Amino acid sequence: MNDALRIFSCNANRTLADEICKRLGLQQSPLEISRFSNDNLRVQVQDNVRERDVFVVQPFTEPVSEHIMELLITIDALRSASAGRVTAVIPYYSYARSDKKDAPRISITGRLIADMLATAGANRVLTMDLHADQVHGFFSVPVDHLTAVPTIAEHFRQNHDLSRMVAVATDAGGAKRVGRFSERLGIPMAIIDKRRVSDTDVKQGRVVGEVAGRDAVIFEDEISTGGTLLATIDTLRAAGARSIHAGAAHGVLCGPAIHRLRDASIESIVVTDTVHMPPHKRLDKITQLTVAPLFAAAIERIHSGESVGALFE
Amino acid sequence: MNDALRIFSCNANRTLADEICKRLGLQQSPLEISRFSNDNLRVQVQDNVRERDVFVVQPFTEPVSEHIMELLITIDALRSASAGRVTAVIPYYSYARSDKKDAPRISITGRLIADMLATAGANRVLTMDLHADQVHGFFSVPVDHLTAVPTIAEHFRQNHDLSRMVAVATDAGGAKRVGRFSERLGIPMAIIDKRRVSDTDVKQGRVVGEVAGRDAVIFEDEISTGGTLLATIDTLRAAGARSIHAGAAHGVLCGPAIHRLRDASIESIVVTDTVHMPPHKRLDKITQLTVAPLFAAAIERIHSGESVGALFE
Amino acid sequence: MNDALRIFSCNANRTLADEICKRLGLQQSPLEISRFSNDNLRVQVQDNVRERDVFVVQPFTEPVSEHIMELLITIDALRSASAGRVTAVIPYYSYARSDKKDAPRISITGRLIADMLATAGANRVLTMDLHADQVHGFFSVPVDHLTAVPTIAEHFRQNHDLSRMVAVATDAGGAKRVGRFSERLGIPMAIIDKRRVSDTDVKQGRVVGEVAGRDAVIFEDEISTGGTLLATIDTLRAAGARSIHAGAAHGVLCGPAIHRLRDASIESIVVTDTVHMPPHKRLDKITQLTVAPLFAAAIERIHSGESVGALFE
Amino acid sequence: MNDALRIFSCNANRTLADEICKRLGLQQSPLEISRFSNDNLRVQVQDNVRERDVFVVQPFTEPVSEHIMELLITIDALRSASAGRVTAVIPYYSYARSDKKDAPRISITGRLIADMLATAGANRVLTMDLHADQVHGFFSVPVDHLTAVPTIAEHFRQNHDLSRMVAVATDAGGAKRVGRFSERLGIPMAIIDKRRVSDTDVKQGRVVGEVAGRDAVIFEDEISTGGTLLATIDTLRAAGARSIHAGAAHGVLCGPAIHRLRDASIESIVVTDTVHMPPHKRLDKITQLTVAPLFAAAIERIHSGESVGALFE
Amino acid sequence: MNDALRIFSCNANRTLADEICKRLGLQQSPLEISRFSNDNLRVQVQDNVRERDVFVVQPFTEPVSEHIMELLITIDALRSASAGRVTAVIPYYSYARSDKKDAPRISITGRLIADMLATAGANRVLTMDLHADQVHGFFSVPVDHLTAVPTIAEHFRQNHDLSRMVAVATDAGGAKRVGRFSERLGIPMAIIDKRRVSDTDVKQGRVVGEVAGRDAVIFEDEISTGGTLLATIDTLRAAGARSIHAGAAHGVLCGPAIHRLRDASIESIVVTDTVHMPPHKRLDKITQLTVAPLFAAAIERIHSGESVGALFE
Amino acid sequence: MNDALRIFSCNANRTLADEICKRLGLQQSPLEISRFSNDNLRVQVQDNVRERDVFVVQPFTEPVSEHIMELLITIDALRSASAGRVTAVIPYYSYARSDKKDAPRISITGRLIADMLATAGANRVLTMDLHADQVHGFFSVPVDHLTAVPTIAEHFRQNHDLSRMVAVATDAGGAKRVGRFSERLGIPMAIIDKRRVSDTDVKQGRVVGEVAGRDAVIFEDEISTGGTLLATIDTLRAAGARSIHAGAAHGVLCGPAIHRLRDASIESIVVTDTVHMPPHKRLDKITQLTVAPLFAAAIERIHSGESVGALFE
Repeated sequence: MNDALRIFSCNANRTLADEICKRLGLQQSPLEISRFSNDNLRVQVQDNVRERDVFVVQPFTEPVSEHIMELLITIDALRSASAGRVTAVIPYYSYARSDKKDAPRISITGRLIADMLATAGANRVLTMDLHADQVHGFFSVPVDHLTAVPTIAEHFRQNHDLSRMVAVATDAGGAKRVGRFSERLGIPMAIIDKRRVSDTDVKQGRVVGEVAGRDAVIFEDEISTGGTLLATIDTLRAAGARSIHAGAAHGVLCGPAIHRLRDASIESIVVTDTVHMPPHKRLDKITQLTVAPLFAAAIERIHSGESVGALFE
Repeated sequence: MNDALRIFSCNANRTLADEICKRLGLQQSPLEISRFSNDNLRVQVQDNVRERDVFVVQPFTEPVSEHIMELLITIDALRSASAGRVTAVIPYYSYARSDKKDAPRISITGRLIADMLATAGANRVLTMDLHADQVHGFFSVPVDHLTAVPTIAEHFRQNHDLSRMVAVATDAGGAKRVGRFSERLGIPMAIIDKRRVSDTDVKQGRVVGEVAGRDAVIFEDEISTGGTLLATIDTLRAAGARSIHAGAAHGVLCGPAIHRLRDASIESIVVTDTVHMPPHKRLDKITQLTVAPLFAAAIERIHSGESVGALFE
Repeated sequence: MNDALRIFSCNANRTLADEICKRLGLQQSPLEISRFSNDNLRVQVQDNVRERDVFVVQPFTEPVSEHIMELLITIDALRSASAGRVTAVIPYYSYARSDKKDAPRISITGRLIADMLATAGANRVLTMDLHADQVHGFFSVPVDHLTAVPTIAEHFRQNHDLSRMVAVATDAGGAKRVGRFSERLGIPMAIIDKRRVSDTDVKQGRVVGEVAGRDAVIFEDEISTGGTLLATIDTLRAAGARSIHAGAAHGVLCGPAIHRLRDASIESIVVTDTVHMPPHKRLDKITQLTVAPLFAAAIERIHSGESVGALFE
Repeated sequence: MNDALRIFSCNANRTLADEICKRLGLQQSPLEISRFSNDNLRVQVQDNVRERDVFVVQPFTEPVSEHIMELLITIDALRSASAGRVTAVIPYYSYARSDKKDAPRISITGRLIADMLATAGANRVLTMDLHADQVHGFFSVPVDHLTAVPTIAEHFRQNHDLSRMVAVATDAGGAKRVGRFSERLGIPMAIIDKRRVSDTDVKQGRVVGEVAGRDAVIFEDEISTGGTLLATIDTLRAAGARSIHAGAAHGVLCGPAIHRLRDASIESIVVTDTVHMPPHKRLDKITQLTVAPLFAAAIERIHSGESVGALFE
Repeated sequence: MNDALRIFSCNANRTLADEICKRLGLQQSPLEISRFSNDNLRVQVQDNVRERDVFVVQPFTEPVSEHIMELLITIDALRSASAGRVTAVIPYYSYARSDKKDAPRISITGRLIADMLATAGANRVLTMDLHADQVHGFFSVPVDHLTAVPTIAEHFRQNHDLSRMVAVATDAGGAKRVGRFSERLGIPMAIIDKRRVSDTDVKQGRVVGEVAGRDAVIFEDEISTGGTLLATIDTLRAAGARSIHAGAAHGVLCGPAIHRLRDASIESIVVTDTVHMPPHKRLDKITQLTVAPLFAAAIERIHSGESVGALFE
Repeated sequence: MNDALRIFSCNANRTLADEICKRLGLQQSPLEISRFSNDNLRVQVQDNVRERDVFVVQPFTEPVSEHIMELLITIDALRSASAGRVTAVIPYYSYARSDKKDAPRISITGRLIADMLATAGANRVLTMDLHADQVHGFFSVPVDHLTAVPTIAEHFRQNHDLSRMVAVATDAGGAKRVGRFSERLGIPMAIIDKRRVSDTDVKQGRVVGEVAGRDAVIFEDEISTGGTLLATIDTLRAAGARSIHAGAAHGVLCGPAIHRLRDASIESIVVTDTVHMPPHKRLDKITQLTVAPLFAAAIERIHSGESVGALFE
């Protein structure tokens, strides 16, 4: 492998790829994605990549199937074009949520996609805030797993009074993530314990921990349609929280999310730019922090063989 | 593996799957495909498939990426639900067209998808009229490759006077397919020889062979937007063909196809039902022949260990 | 594969294997495990297993490395002796705890061992109460994942007054498991939120949720040296719990565990027999429930192709 | 991998390997191929190849099985001798002709050999004018696919009057190749349409396109026993061609070929040196063009990470 | 897999395959091996093998490369024709002799061919008297390893006076095999210790053990050109042996073997029919014992799931 | 891969690793091996290894299972920490002794462990004096196989009068090894021919070759409990040997070995330091030669791409 570093981007978040390139002092390498008349995708790598150290940026945002196929075909094209090493940079790995069998005869799709990436020819993966830490173990190739938790925590430290703040998990499964976030800020935590109500299939939440008279920060890995967030806001209001905020690495914000959040009784929401946010999705109450510097630093270290873990020490 | 045969269908062509089941005297087994709020797909196999001999029907029609992902996730769910054997029934394998490198640094996606199917857990593939016969060799699992050529040829024999008929290939690459079709009907063939015209990138076609005063049947593997067909009709008209017809296994008919074909100077078009044709795509001049009996017979033979090749003897 | 079912056991828990066999109306098949003079293991399968459906029982108990090697060598011997199918029955998969990278440059050994089992020739895995549900996704072969939660919950329902009971997770990571347990009993939950105390590396726990005046059931996946349990007992006592109990699928009870638990301020402890409990480890306050009927039923269903999930409906 | 480039040759065409080395300013590295008394082959690499970038030249010429085995064993020896990268240079990949199932229960041997090469340890393949472009997709390792079409076309441009020339395909399957050749020379094309004659199994050819009074160039990928060529010459003569020539990348010329071609009514034949032509096979009417410069340039570019495609722009 | 057993044979030893079939009460299934004009092999399986239990007989005799390729292509054809299970029956696995690195940068071809067989699709291997027992471990698929030692020993017991007999190994590497043979007959053993003579590369043999005045039986796994045998005869004569015999499983007898052995000072030679012996290779002093009953019994047991090891108890 | 070379050691022989490092002018890189409360191993690589050329030293000494697991987990940790290349340095590969099926339904564990090493991520293996040369072929990754035979032979040449010396193999299987050793010293050889005595299962040894009045050197690959050695000493004494010595690459010396050897009628024993010898195992009559220089030289050559075979020329 020679010294040349190449950054490509598929269609899901070219803005983030540009930001990363800017910080690396590089141009995005040209990649043409087009479509045949029968809806087949066609990807052409438009730069010599022989023996180069190649990174392809593509979070798994809507339309997810299309974006995954774009990435797989791009990796295959790079490999057969003799790239020295191909790193799939997946800032948001949506299928990390399909990480277990909570119903019979379903697919653990987080593992399936990991296997697909290896089959297509990915030599490494660089990702951020997987839904569960265990998903790291689904990959057979080396993974660098970044986190936006310090970035988001820092935002709250600088913009809020932490003295009455409490971090809230929307369900028991998120307790660990919230524990890590709250410990970093030195604030207490609470969790919403969701239960199936007898005779119905509806789940109702009860707060475990103290939130009355406090400033609650709902902390999640992702906010998609905002449904969970809204239900949690209601529960917290009923439990006497005096103000409500939310933080999440991945601002998926799809479907009715923007409409809902605009009207929701929540003071502020902080997400990162792992998911592209077009202008029509922007709200005053939503702050988008950039993770481009983090990805740029990680790519530089992977390329030069320096420790990536050291970024978080 | 026990005796039970199970037929599932993803979303691309449930009508064909139903027709196949009807001929096998079976019910489609239940499969639920839904979508999480972040656009992730969720597939649940809703019947016990342990040690069963399972077939999943899914042609790669528009939206292609979505339909491929549906199939891959379904296969993974079936495998991890301990299916005895999983056969991917892909009546139309769209990426067979991405079968070579005719430009630098592209993906031979027909091979990539073949590898993906094996990675997901497909034990066999059953397909029809691949764009090139060689695509068969892209698969590492056994493939049964059916053909609708006899079915379509038979249609022309029964509905047309063959005495002045000539079969036409739209380019040199299709000559082999048309040779096989024309030999079966005992009619001559011609091909359109497309050339890049100096100083432009436009390709112009010249007819090689005799078409003047003849009834031309343009024979293809698929008709998608109809662009190639229209150009061929013009060339044939200019060369004096007295009537024009078309035949193809796969009536993809996407984008402007229906609009174009309605107005085109072509007498009749024959396709099969490998691709689902919704009511709004139907035209009087288009005849859709069913291949369900062929698929049903092949599945029965695969299941019981009889020769599939014998179907075509 | 012919009809014959064969159950073998390595050395880790022959008692459980016997109990399973008894319920299946079978004899354990003979397996000789010996040792060469250089400490190499030698395993001989002492029954013809050609085309048989073979299950090998081996939880990963102390000495763990030895027991894993025994299992791997046995699977290899079975495969090369032409067994029709080999299912590794691992009631306690200890390395499920090594399921993520919570420090730089460590191994996700839960995945490594899963790959080793596949390399040795295991066709399936049958296990129970993995530390995290996601570990299921580490395996490339089909896994049946049983749970003792209903068995343990039922024990508490029949032997205790649930009206003042609260289920307690020893840390945020266990919240999900405890949520499932408490929902099944219809009791509230609490979690111990452990924090690093400034200037030291010691972690201190605070209770999130209500435990004062309540009967606390600490619920875990496993109890090994009892250290976590003891710290939790102290925290709960300080928080005013009026009685304390514990439940866990895996009673590893190694090192100082028995000594510690005998003297600990805890009323009762319930575990299962996934881990063999020799007489000297028995205490009056420890109840061991058997999971042999569950494993026997699962093996019978796997063998005959019936749904295993149906066991838990 | 360090900087050293090493070129080895097995026995099939050491002359070509020498020519390639000469152009690269290198000596062939020593390789000893011998035979044990039981007819087993023995290959010894006689130079240190650790971390070297190694290329092995071996077209699949008669005796094909022997030459394939020589190459496989050599690759295995190189890999286990710790070569940094092994590229199989196969100027003539004979089994590209076994690329589909045109009869039941045959092997697609072109794929099988591709898999064998990967199993033996080939990291890349460099080849020329595969029978069908799709065969590229049979390989799981990166392939550089060169073509002699421009070289042969250039020969005709410089040595013949193109004004009455027509390029001829010997059957429909070759139409695409001939289309590419004729387009490059700006001459028309024709194809021989072969049909089974009723009641017999003999195939008879009819010319599709204009050849009367023209200078015909039969263009093929390979000429082996010359049988197809002779039949085509007869058909063209009968159709009034005024002179006949032939061009093909691979001059296999085995069995009765030389004898037949000497007496055949054909003016000239052009092939390349992918297949070694010993003195007794040389005829005045056969011109052998060398592809050594093309292979040398490709090897240099693969070694240094430059684009190979650029050779053909 | 259904009940049907099918026996095919490639070209190396159809006589043995017929003998095996006769004992199984079966007809050989038809297999057509032909050759394309470019020397490519073509194999067609001429019987439906879907889900059948298929065995292919092919020892690796001269021409070895050809016979190996025949077998690999046949296995690939069977697999892709959906055979239920394919067992490669290789009575003589010639490359077992290439089992170690006794020179730098050579291939351990015995392992390479084992990997090739798996790549082609062999599910099992059935073989006899591998040069070294360890070669069994080269295969990733289950192997049944038969031995002709008891058959040959029994021949000597019945036809000779054992009282003065000594078994002789032609070199130190064969000591183990000879030990097993001599123990079975209750006779002593000796070995020829071959040494490089100073200043030359010639090896000279010295007898270790007692042979003077004894009847020596040279015991080997194979006799190929007879060179080793001749040298050993000389050494034994010089050491005073009163009569000399030889036994070997594999009578390869190639090159000058028959000519040499006819004139050699040896009383009798016993081999089996793993290698086909055409009439012109027969000598009065050579006895060929058949191993067809052994192979037939093994195939029957593999097919029905009975112990093969029990054949030798 | 960059230039940095890193040497790690697991727990089996840190002394040898230190000696190797000393000769390479390097420090051992830090590796922490600890144990969780449930007996799970935990390995942390405590130095950045990205793209480094990493070697891990770990002979398979008692406790073997533990030491193998340590190595596998370390390799996995290194690989997922993005090491450029991982070489498993296994000076003593104990399972080389499990290299064949000498009983039905056992595992060829030497092959199994080789596959495990590849699964864990080892890119190469460096080992010494495998029990049989063929074990080399069990590995799918490149192996450098060193030998201590010249080192031990040299010791005897320098410290003993060779004129009456004879090298002795403890059984027929060791004849080849002893042949090589004796040829190097120019001394004759003898072997112990062990036979099962009728009516009992006890094996009794007879000497083949001349030992009376000679100085016998029993030469082995390893000495473990010393049982074989003691039996051989008795046989040799009975046969009139005037003095007895022993040499072996691997001084496993486990169980009763030291006790036995102290009292045994043997003059001297020579082993190497592939196996760590703690002070309590040292006897005056045992000489331990170091192979650290050999391993250091091999590592240096592997790292820099020089021939390792040249070390033995």
